[in-house]
Amino acid sequence: MIQGRTWVFENRPYIAASSAVGGPFEANGPLAEDFDFLHGDLWLGQDSFEKAEKMLLEQACKKAVDKAGMKADDIQFFLSGDLMNQVISSSFAARTLAVPYLGLFGACSTSMESLALGALIVSSGFGDKVLVGTASHNAAVEKQFRYPTEYGGQKPQTAQWTVTGAGAAVLTSKKTKDEIYVAAATVGRVVDMGISDPFNMGAAMAPAAVDTIESHFRDLGLSEDEYDLILTGDLGKIGHRIAGDLLVKHGLKLPEEKFGDCGLMIYDEQQPVQAGGSGCACSACVTYGHVLNRMKNGELRKVLIVATGALLSPISYQQKETIPCIAHAVAIEKGGDPKK
Amino acid sequence: MIQGRTWVFENRPYIAASSAVGGPFEANGPLAEDFDFLHGDLWLGQDSFEKAEKMLLEQACKKAVDKAGMKADDIQFFLSGDLMNQVISSSFAARTLAVPYLGLFGACSTSMESLALGALIVSSGFGDKVLVGTASHNAAVEKQFRYPTEYGGQKPQTAQWTVTGAGAAVLTSKKTKDEIYVAAATVGRVVDMGISDPFNMGAAMAPAAVDTIESHFRDLGLSEDEYDLILTGDLGKIGHRIAGDLLVKHGLKLPEEKFGDCGLMIYDEQQPVQAGGSGCACSACVTYGHVLNRMKNGELRKVLIVATGALLSPISYQQKETIPCIAHAVAIEKGGDPKK
Repeated sequence: MIQGRTWVFENRPYIAASSAVGGPFEANGPLAEDFDFLHGDLWLGQDSFEKAEKMLLEQACKKAVDKAGMKADDIQFFLSGDLMNQVISSSFAARTLAVPYLGLFGACSTSMESLALGALIVSSGFGDKVLVGTASHNAAVEKQFRYPTEYGGQKPQTAQWTVTGAGAAVLTSKKTKDEIYVAAATVGRVVDMGISDPFNMGAAMAPAAVDTIESHFRDLGLSEDEYDLILTGDLGKIGHRIAGDLLVKHGLKLPEEKFGDCGLMIYDEQQPVQAGGSGCACSACVTYGHVLNRMKNGELRKVLIVATGALLSPISYQQKETIPCIAHAVAIEKGGDPKK
Repeated sequence: MIQGRTWVFENRPYIAASSAVGGPFEANGPLAEDFDFLHGDLWLGQDSFEKAEKMLLEQACKKAVDKAGMKADDIQFFLSGDLMNQVISSSFAARTLAVPYLGLFGACSTSMESLALGALIVSSGFGDKVLVGTASHNAAVEKQFRYPTEYGGQKPQTAQWTVTGAGAAVLTSKKTKDEIYVAAATVGRVVDMGISDPFNMGAAMAPAAVDTIESHFRDLGLSEDEYDLILTGDLGKIGHRIAGDLLVKHGLKLPEEKFGDCGLMIYDEQQPVQAGGSGCACSACVTYGHVLNRMKNGELRKVLIVATGALLSPISYQQKETIPCIAHAVAIEKGGDPKK
């Protein structure tokens, strides 16, 4: 069923299992215990950072499939994307998995773009075992979008730190023990408020997050305290504050204690990550690790993840373009007895 | 309904309208009359080739929406991708369109990846007016993947010529006058036979096309003469011949006169395009222009488009990786009285 631009999944796509893999910075963060694997070395034994990113994704996929009690062969479709040029991490992981593959690109919103489309495929009966995932790697992304990290370039306090990690989830139509399912998804549209500074992407992305959150609440006629938790993807300190202010201006007062940002949760205040975490893996790891763990143990029952993406490229920036941004929101809920 | 890895669309997603936009090379090709617009200048009045590519896509989208008798506001979802790093042509066109957007990446297979997913959304009732499209630009792609065209680098005869153009289609659940609809779609998996030469992508992609064609026929239990026309996307002279040979080896003898390649149709033998056309726009323009025109006038009733994509990046090539390839197949059919 569709309401506005929100898909409501009446046939529930269940999250059979999920996984989160991280790197050394993530291992020192407050959510370390929610990861399935943590790597002490950025190289993962590979001879390039790009290959290390691919390996993160492959590990996350393999772990999610294992935890779901399946084999790679059982997976009917793999939906994935990343920040690399021509999404090579996803394509090369798809080569390893050797299952039907749909490549996506939504920058850091890819985590929820893939979950939304995967849920749609399962809910509509066009697939029963669907794997979704995404990855990012700090050094690979810095090299591609800015400068190789070996240069030691300095950054302003508005800049964010790309998460090294990967997250994946297996969706199925079969009810699972935990009864955690994708209830709805709101597809974002591109919002561009004229910001062109790639060292301030949180501010650029905030209006896109607000646009999608507003649509989601309006489309479904929800009250402001509908969710136990609403997380933006990677707005960071500056962007998240802007989003909060904009939402109030637009008349939507989300309870402050229930409105967070994955980019602010994944690292400690003490870690040198400037305005917070970012990258495809940021919302993927926090959602597929920490959030789903809290849902499993009954702490959270209704969660809205609003993954934000800055759809720029180094070329668009060099050609003086502003930054088009997008946010896709996915509502994840837990069925069963709320007292358990 | 799903059979193997093929989606069968029982609720028909109709192609309400489609469009094809081309550049100067395409204007000199044999299919020139099937384009809605042809540009004599590669720049399209823009100050970069990347912006010209975006404009091609915007024109194709606008034209398809106009021909469908709709306005941009009517479109519920826009699905698009391209070859540019971070698919900027699609993201920036989505900014102009200002409608909910799902970015895709399947290299040159994006034409059919977007059509397949758009058809799934319409068929399953999660959207009623969906726009799908893709674009490529010869000079933008050469600059990004190889060298700027101004360098005048020479290429081997196995190389292909990226089409400058864009194609778009509007899908809807409402039966149209022409009754042309998407009947089924087979999602490709990544096939990599170890070829690493980016000047011979037809040969690299051929096994992926064969894998998808075989799956399509097997999944649906079709006979070899089921279709009036089967077109691969952009295998070119060498790849198409390899695909034909491989299919015979695998026991699938498609009638020769019914098995073609968009990359061999879009240009004349006399044009200096080496092994033939390629690029996201190749299969998109041939399908959304020429093929649909032939379906409208009743010449063709059942067509299978097998769009092929080489999922490499300059970095993966430089790191000595081979080329992972994929092919997505979409069956387009015409309802109504076959005698008309």
